[in-house]
Order: sequence, then structure tokens, then C-alpha cells
Amino acid sequence: MHPEALSEQIYSKKSFLCVGLDPDPEKLPICLKSQDPAEGIIAFNQHIIEATLPYAVAYKPNFAFYESLGSIGYSVLEETLKCIPPNVMVIADAKRGDIGNTSAMYAKAVFDRPGVDAITVAPYMGKDSVMPFLSFKNKWVFLLALTSNPGAQDFQFLTSNEKPLHEWVIQKSLEWSKEGEGHLGFVAGATHPEDIPRLRTLAPKSFFLVPGIGAQGGEMEPVIRHLAPRVLINVGRQILYASSGADYAEAAEKEARNIWEGFKLYYNW
Amino acid sequence: MHPEALSEQIYSKKSFLCVGLDPDPEKLPICLKSQDPAEGIIAFNQHIIEATLPYAVAYKPNFAFYESLGSIGYSVLEETLKCIPPNVMVIADAKRGDIGNTSAMYAKAVFDRPGVDAITVAPYMGKDSVMPFLSFKNKWVFLLALTSNPGAQDFQFLTSNEKPLHEWVIQKSLEWSKEGEGHLGFVAGATHPEDIPRLRTLAPKSFFLVPGIGAQGGEMEPVIRHLAPRVLINVGRQILYASSGADYAEAAEKEARNIWEGFKLYYNW
Repeated sequence: MHPEALSEQIYSKKSFLCVGLDPDPEKLPICLKSQDPAEGIIAFNQHIIEATLPYAVAYKPNFAFYESLGSIGYSVLEETLKCIPPNVMVIADAKRGDIGNTSAMYAKAVFDRPGVDAITVAPYMGKDSVMPFLSFKNKWVFLLALTSNPGAQDFQFLTSNEKPLHEWVIQKSLEWSKEGEGHLGFVAGATHPEDIPRLRTLAPKSFFLVPGIGAQGGEMEPVIRHLAPRVLINVGRQILYASSGADYAEAAEKEARNIWEGFKLYYNW
Repeated sequence: MHPEALSEQIYSKKSFLCVGLDPDPEKLPICLKSQDPAEGIIAFNQHIIEATLPYAVAYKPNFAFYESLGSIGYSVLEETLKCIPPNVMVIADAKRGDIGNTSAMYAKAVFDRPGVDAITVAPYMGKDSVMPFLSFKNKWVFLLALTSNPGAQDFQFLTSNEKPLHEWVIQKSLEWSKEGEGHLGFVAGATHPEDIPRLRTLAPKSFFLVPGIGAQGGEMEPVIRHLAPRVLINVGRQILYASSGADYAEAAEKEARNIWEGFKLYYNW
């Protein structure tokens, strides 16, 4: 996907919403739990996608939720991806990263699936672990920079030569991306509002994928003020499990619309 | 698996060998390429395991190679794991790591497979990304510390308060492991011989999983001298692709035996 195609979605829908497709079998609406597990999750994902598509510019299936289903997980994901139109970005939230030849296998495994436009990648192993993903033309890498979870405090703020680790990650990887044919963005949690302006300065032109709003407690205002319009704001649980009843799709639609209306408060389209 | 069970294998076989089960369809012996791809890889893995079992105390399937097979990958891995006796460690080389609730899904996905004893985990996201794996009783985490690839230079040696990042990772995670019920080991590449003694000092009682010998050019002597007997030395390509002919299993057995004989040069059983 070309950056202009993503921007076109953002402007035409007036939205930064990325919906996290993380179907937890235990949290499925009761009416779906009685079905065959794979069919229940596929139906759930389809209905969530249909309900949120007017507001969503991207979908982000987290691979952990599909892998935990065992052998059916692969086809559940395939069927889910079929429901997403090609002009809407699909981000494989897989947080991969390994030595060069192995990252190349992961890149193939992820980007060969029809419809996948982007992958999240972990930076710890450095350049040769990231380049195989960045070498795919018009595919995207969202590299973990400053994550939304409490554990972000453990290593990501360690300071070397007056720069915290996540700044090293952003600056070095922007150098690498010049050698690739893909596009490089960064994961930055909304749980770090005081750091967001600095991140935009470090990567003025990059898209940011921002988790942490909703269930994790991050706020939308500083994210949009400093990162828009090149930002994707991920919301998962808050939309997916807005209702555990038969009205889960309507409830998801309402929740997505509420978030979408929030965008208008902070961004002047 | 209890650490004593692993040590028992090491002493009874007089071996530190972990065989990396990374079957690349393009590198399969010609006689197997004509088969159905899944069957060809399962047969290859079975023959490699049979041939190397006298010398191997652990097997390490790298998940990238199975995921790249698409939907058949899951069952290829399942069938492969069935060939490994329960007293031989299986390390899922998956390099996972995500926010707490997602790491919990990954832990379930990996440790629920029969026969898997351990997983490799990436540390970038900190404590809550690692703890779900460490909470499984008698399962193992091998946390990435100092990896074998060139990209290890990018971030793992960044120094904060006079300690390189990989030292922070080892020291902090050893604190975390006291809260878990699993066992914590570390990945340290044989490509850093000058750093190996320091790593042992940092984690005097831990098992180390050491890639980088063979195709990546690392040497065995410093690894065994400083880390044995609590070390697993991973060799993949050098064994798997010792021959591309019909004699691949014999060639793998010979290669494994050569490595095993090397252990005797450096360790006094």
C-alpha cells in the first residue's frame, strides 16, 4: 500500500481509527459461543468489520490470538482478511524479529498472505533482523519504539549518550529504511503523552501506530495534536467487547462512531 | 522440564548439542522435493531427529520456517514434535513478546502444544511481556540477551550507567524470574567470544542457549570453557544440510557426531 492510499482513506473517512482484531474465545458474545469455535470467531470478526468499516482506515489482527486457536487459527485469519477491502490497511501485529535469514522467512510468511500490508517488528536484534521486512516494496514495517505497556519503563528509557533507547531505535532505523523499498512507521503508546511531541520531532514524516487508548488508559488529544494526520490510533477491546449480547455489532459500531466523533474534537479536517 | 532432567540428558549423552530444526523447502534433499511438501518436510525432520538423537539433548524448531509453510505449517510442527522423546528438551524458537494479555495468548499458543518445554522471548517490551511465559511451571524462557547476528551491535551494546543493554536485560530479568514458576535462561551468540565470560558472571546459575556456531562462524572453545555444563549449543544448517543427496541423514549423523566429539576436546566429563 502506498502512503497516499492510506492518507486517502484517512481524509475520505476523516478517521485515524485502526481496529484491533483480537478475538478472545472467552470473551465472544454468548450467542456465538455455541457455534463451532472457528466459525464463531470468523462470524464475530466479519460482523465487527462490517460494523466498523465506515470509521476504520486500518485493521490490526494480533497474531497471538489466532495462533492460540491452534491449527484452525491460520484459516480463521485468512477468512477474516477476506472481509477487508483492499484499500483498507491490514497490519499483522506479530512483533517478529530474528537473524536475517529467519526474518526473511517471517516476512515471507506474513507478506505472502493476500491482503496484509504491514507488520509490527521488534527492534532488539538490530538491522539485519528488520531489513528483510523493509525490503518488500510497498509493504510497511511498524517498528516498536515506545510501547504502551508498563514494561516500556524497563528498557526503552535507558539512556545512552543522553538518548533513551527508543530514540536510538527511531534514528537508526530511519537510516536503514533508506536502503529498503518498504515504508517505516513506529509503534508509540498513547500512555506516554509527555513523550509524543518528541517522537514526532524525531520522525517528522513517519506514520505512527498508537495503541493504549481505551482499555490501557491513554488519551487521544495529545496523540492527535502532535501526530495527525500521519497516525493510526488502535482500539481493540473497547470496540470488540462493547457488548457481550446479541447486539455486539451494533455496540461496536456505536463505540467506533464515538471514537470517530472524538477525532473531530481534536483535528480540523 | 526440570533443570535436573536437562542436566541428566547432558551428562548421560556427554553433549551440549541442540539441533535447530529449521527446514527450508528450497534446501531439502532432492529426493524429498518430489513429495507432497508437508510430507517431505515431516520425513526430513523425522530422519534428522533419528540420526542426531544419540548426540542431541535438545531440539529447537524455529517457528518462522513452519509459519512460512502456510496452513500446513502447524501440523508439520506437530508431527515433528511427536518424534522427540519427552526427556529431550524442545525449544520453540519464536522470539515472542507483547503486552501482558497478548503475551499470555502467545504463551498459551506455544506451551499448550504437547512436548514444548521452552520458548525464546524478546525483551524489548519489558517485564509484563515476559512474565506470562515465566509463570508456567517447569517451562523455560530463553530471553534474548546478546544475539549472534551482526545487528546485535546496533542496540545490545548501548551503554547506560556503564552497563550495556544486554546486561540490563540479564540483571532485571533475573529479578523477575523469582516471581515466576518457570526457569529463565539466556540466548548468547557464540559470535561474541570476548563477552561470554562476563555473561556467565552475570548469570552464574543460568542455562545459556548459544547459536552462532557453524554457519555464523562462532567458535566452540570459549563457549564451553565459560558456560558448560549449563549450556545448549545450537547447530542448525550445518547438520540439516550436510548433504543434499539421499544420504542426508547419514551426513547429519556424521556432522552431529563430529560436533559431539568436539565437546570432548573442551570439557572434561
